Amino acid sequence: MRMYDLINKKKIGEELSEEEIRFMINGYVDGSVPDYQMSAMLMAIFFQGMSDKEIFAMTDAMAKSGDMVDLSAIEGIKVDKHSTGGVGDKTTLIIGPIVAACGVKVAKMSGRGLGHTGGTIDKLEAIPGYKTDIPQDKFFENVNKCGISVVGQSGNLTPADKKIYALRDVTATVDSIPLITASIMSKKLAAGSDCILLDVKTGSGAFMKTVEEAEVLAKKMVDIGKIAGRKVQALVTDMDIPLGHAIGNSLEVIEAVNTLKGQGPEDLTYICKELSASMMYLADIGDMDECRAKVDEVIASGAALNKLVEMVENQCGDSSVIKNTELFEKASIVHKVVAKKSGFISHIDSEKCGIASVVLEAGRETKESPIDYASGLILDKKLGDEVKEGDVIATLYTNNQAKVEPAENIIYEAYVIDDEKPEERPLILSQIM
Amino acid sequence: MRMYDLINKKKIGEELSEEEIRFMINGYVDGSVPDYQMSAMLMAIFFQGMSDKEIFAMTDAMAKSGDMVDLSAIEGIKVDKHSTGGVGDKTTLIIGPIVAACGVKVAKMSGRGLGHTGGTIDKLEAIPGYKTDIPQDKFFENVNKCGISVVGQSGNLTPADKKIYALRDVTATVDSIPLITASIMSKKLAAGSDCILLDVKTGSGAFMKTVEEAEVLAKKMVDIGKIAGRKVQALVTDMDIPLGHAIGNSLEVIEAVNTLKGQGPEDLTYICKELSASMMYLADIGDMDECRAKVDEVIASGAALNKLVEMVENQCGDSSVIKNTELFEKASIVHKVVAKKSGFISHIDSEKCGIASVVLEAGRETKESPIDYASGLILDKKLGDEVKEGDVIATLYTNNQAKVEPAENIIYEAYVIDDEKPEERPLILSQIM
Repeated sequence: MRMYDLINKKKIGEELSEEEIRFMINGYVDGSVPDYQMSAMLMAIFFQGMSDKEIFAMTDAMAKSGDMVDLSAIEGIKVDKHSTGGVGDKTTLIIGPIVAACGVKVAKMSGRGLGHTGGTIDKLEAIPGYKTDIPQDKFFENVNKCGISVVGQSGNLTPADKKIYALRDVTATVDSIPLITASIMSKKLAAGSDCILLDVKTGSGAFMKTVEEAEVLAKKMVDIGKIAGRKVQALVTDMDIPLGHAIGNSLEVIEAVNTLKGQGPEDLTYICKELSASMMYLADIGDMDECRAKVDEVIASGAALNKLVEMVENQCGDSSVIKNTELFEKASIVHKVVAKKSGFISHIDSEKCGIASVVLEAGRETKESPIDYASGLILDKKLGDEVKEGDVIATLYTNNQAKVEPAENIIYEAYVIDDEKPEERPLILSQIM
Repeated sequence: MRMYDLINKKKIGEELSEEEIRFMINGYVDGSVPDYQMSAMLMAIFFQGMSDKEIFAMTDAMAKSGDMVDLSAIEGIKVDKHSTGGVGDKTTLIIGPIVAACGVKVAKMSGRGLGHTGGTIDKLEAIPGYKTDIPQDKFFENVNKCGISVVGQSGNLTPADKKIYALRDVTATVDSIPLITASIMSKKLAAGSDCILLDVKTGSGAFMKTVEEAEVLAKKMVDIGKIAGRKVQALVTDMDIPLGHAIGNSLEVIEAVNTLKGQGPEDLTYICKELSASMMYLADIGDMDECRAKVDEVIASGAALNKLVEMVENQCGDSSVIKNTELFEKASIVHKVVAKKSGFISHIDSEKCGIASVVLEAGRETKESPIDYASGLILDKKLGDEVKEGDVIATLYTNNQAKVEPAENIIYEAYVIDDEKPEERPLILSQIM
């Protein structure tokens, strides 16, 4: 078998066999297929697409390129959640404890942030002492004991995806539905959970700009997950503006704690409750209304918040900051951004807010950048809010005075103030199962 | 400027600017643009195509990536010829001397053969002593003196084309009209002639299988050549079966000599006369009929053959083999291939004939393979000839007995014998100017 022939086959629109796809993925991982042939193939896939059979074969080969996590040591139904990423997306910190409190097992591997989007692992590391790199037996033990553990991705999970993603990133082949599907689903399959809930973001702050595109991707991922024998569901959710008010690591943990107390922002609370109920539904806890009722119950009783405390303690974290968020270290500089004119907030650009948080040192520009857990921003005004000139629209937190002005300028670009109150957008746009 | 953005621009179907194309070509030659980005770009070009403006910019940047040959030291109008390649294509050996005898200057750089197609330089080296690597001033002097010199390509001609072609060859991006155009025309522009005649082959033995495809390529090359300020014309000619009877280096030289004497095969003679007249027409020698008359004249008078003798002598070759082709060293083994049934020759597969010649050691499998100048084959029967079972259809020449049987088997596959006489195919299918 020659990679040349496979490139040519895809180029002229023929279907690659399972064996051919395995040859290509394994060859790329072991170095026998060079970068320049893989990038030509990726571009051909961008133009010619892939059948479900091909996408499944690619997903499967990529999942099996490294360790396949065996969660059988954990009792009960294990449910995973994946979000296609966004700004201010702290849902894992909220949903995980909620569903664990309802009896669903969450053995979750999360990533770090890069560029304008944050990562769950960075947010957890804002909690003093929290260890994200615990050994696998301890990870399983924690899930068995308290129902939830969130750790960093192991070094040997889907090496094929890591190598292919890095290549796509420099050859303009990221935006391909088959390639996105194989990338996400290979990681989910390798991570080992029985059920997978996919949160596909759409809107100006998301990779899929339109609901239609997001639905196509969601449908494809659900189909591939089902072929792999997993229970999968997807929700297409809005990411036109950032979720909640907080962007930045400890600021987001504080907002997550408030939400678990039933005192979170309306948009974040609603999305988290729906995602939680969907995860529970996937795990056969009950019908959607029963699941929703259980979610309300564990929030009201404090059981959900207690799960977060328990999870943090199991991973050597200092739970006092969860019990009293006033104890989080604070940024030395707090700067109020005020409206330059009166009107209604008609748009908040998510990407710009994310970039402002990176400027304030809450995120990473490169993989090696250190981050300041205390810094970030609070969006005091959200979509549809009425403001008067001089009202505070956002608050910046940082320990570096030089970063205040550039971040403020970005925030002014992110906020659009209009005379008319904008129409409300639904937060959950569709459900694919 | 970033190569990533250029790949993305091409991928979404936007036009690249001249500056962007120059950045890409120069970057690829100097190594700052890596292979994997270039191959993604080449595949995107395969799918999105290129405007004439883009193709010209690419051709120009590739031509200027190395030496631009300055032929101004040669007096008169310099005419170059390019054939897209085929089996048994010895036209350069015939046309060059003809047009030189008619007063047109031919300062030609030719290539070696690889795989099933032969190269002019190998054919010339079948002439004992012929030097293909003479210094540039000697090359110019020879053209000024006798009107013609054919040499090997200099090391520093279009390095961008060499590097890009090698990459296309392993990434299944050879068959793209814009890329073929830029590759051929960059070499022709760098080679410096005022007028360029393109012989675009079509049929089963050619790269362009249909006349329509060949015409599209021919038109594109003519357009780009004109944008570059050269006089360009293209003929689309048939390469469904090999040209002439001889395949193999000294066998082809002998056939060329016979053709220059007016005793060549009908198909080869006709094509060579038309190509010669077209080159002369491009050089303003007269109208097509006047040019055809001059061609007949120099063949009849022996002036054309004398030009070949002179050219060989100017390049240290032993012209006695031209004056008396019986003096060429002969292969030790001569094997007759006979028809297994009676009927009409309805097809002769060019590629298979080419492969048979390589098996007989007349051509190269890899760039390093040595070649046997005396070996090859003669197609005794051509398209439409009637044969009886047992008649000789082809004669194999080699110095290696072990190669006879495998070559004979390939020849049996190449020849198709049918009950019906096939329709005659025109040899020149269209003319594009």
